[in-house]
Amino acid sequence: MQLPESVIARRLADWPVARLATVAADGAPHQVPVVFARSGGSLWTPVDGKPKSGRELARVRNVRERPHVSLLLDEYSADWTQLWWIRVDAQARVVSPETPDQDTRFTAAREALRAKYRQYEEVPLLTGRPTLIELEISGTHSWCASEAASRV
Amino acid sequence: MQLPESVIARRLADWPVARLATVAADGAPHQVPVVFARSGGSLWTPVDGKPKSGRELARVRNVRERPHVSLLLDEYSADWTQLWWIRVDAQARVVSPETPDQDTRFTAAREALRAKYRQYEEVPLLTGRPTLIELEISGTHSWCASEAASRV
Repeated sequence: MQLPESVIARRLADWPVARLATVAADGAPHQVPVVFARSGGSLWTPVDGKPKSGRELARVRNVRERPHVSLLLDEYSADWTQLWWIRVDAQARVVSPETPDQDTRFTAAREALRAKYRQYEEVPLLTGRPTLIELEISGTHSWCASEAASRV
Repeated sequence: MQLPESVIARRLADWPVARLATVAADGAPHQVPVVFARSGGSLWTPVDGKPKSGRELARVRNVRERPHVSLLLDEYSADWTQLWWIRVDAQARVVSPETPDQDTRFTAAREALRAKYRQYEEVPLLTGRPTLIELEISGTHSWCASEAASRV
């Protein structure tokens, strides 16, 4: 069975973690766990500083070439009647404004991340050139194992 | 930092859940949470009965067309020093023998799933025509946030 729309909306706002799947230029899928926040109708996930190699992160390279991505929210439980997932199909865009403070959508997304994750009181958000990936939702699919699993 | 090889091996054996990413014929990524077990050097994940639509599950269709898949293991924690992930690149294969009981690799994988998940004492394993997806590991990447996160 599917999750109610209200539950999907709430989990897209509140759930702390998701897995982002992108596709590389050679067609291979790539996954990474991400934090995310909702702002301005989109979901936003931060890109931390460049890896030591100096190359862009794989997810950033992939999104530039192939913007169609998948975001999966779910919670595992040993009680399989409690299982659920939400799969978001999205068009992704790398957002790295030269003057972030003047980009109101960017700053709103950054504040949404800070508001959702109190960890950012201690961990720096957006080290290096400030970069977010914006996920414009094109569709959602959901599943839950039981009525009980659909409750918030 | 990376996880020690011994930890990767243990989590590939013991960790209860992973996210499988496949790629559809149109190039879009697809994700679903899966259970899995290690057997005969591969990882195996069960395919439950066909959906009501009568079509094959998306992951099965995708794997037949594009065998390169990604499997992600990770554990979210509000304490970000505890974060870790393991990403498995794999070549996937849909295995659905006509006489499963005579296929020793298939039966070994089926028993590995039963041994790992006691839930299968109550939930039927492999309803419909018995089908597993075999993931032949072609590489693993890992990351952990701290020494503490790398301990088993």
